[in-house]
Amino acid sequence: MLLSEDQVRKELADTNGWELSGQGITRSFQFKDFLEAINFVNKVAEIAEQHDHHPDIAISYNKVQLSVFTHSEGGLTEKDFLLAREINSILT
Amino acid sequence: MLLSEDQVRKELADTNGWELSGQGITRSFQFKDFLEAINFVNKVAEIAEQHDHHPDIAISYNKVQLSVFTHSEGGLTEKDFLLAREINSILT
Repeated sequence: MLLSEDQVRKELADTNGWELSGQGITRSFQFKDFLEAINFVNKVAEIAEQHDHHPDIAISYNKVQLSVFTHSEGGLTEKDFLLAREINSILT
Repeated sequence: MLLSEDQVRKELADTNGWELSGQGITRSFQFKDFLEAINFVNKVAEIAEQHDHHPDIAISYNKVQLSVFTHSEGGLTEKDFLLAREINSILT
């Protein structure tokens, strides 16, 4: 179910580092080098498969940008924020 | 060393599926699903590390777009085409 603007605002406040971008949410990550970036992407991939929800991923050497969006609903749902927070937990 | 336009044209003819885009070359790949796409990206990463030359990588579920460019030279060099052809060899 699509979240209301109010709900999105609350969810964003609980989802460190992510911001609105287009119809979805996005966060950029920076690592020591390319291999650390790829290592992170593999952890993201594992979480994405568990959630059956897959972020768009852009890798540029040591930088990774993730974008999350519920295609089937055409906007943001609870699934997006659950995924984003679980991805954040990789870094802690 | 930057390649001339003529050299780029010859190299492109030898590099199946890649095309000019901006200052670099790009190719899109499509796989059965997200995991196959990630599997491919890991093979690309291994080759990139061997060459110490790293493509930009964009993953959207089962699609992967690679972009290659020699940043230090500000354009296309032999390194870019060597990398592109070795990436192509993953698929054969």
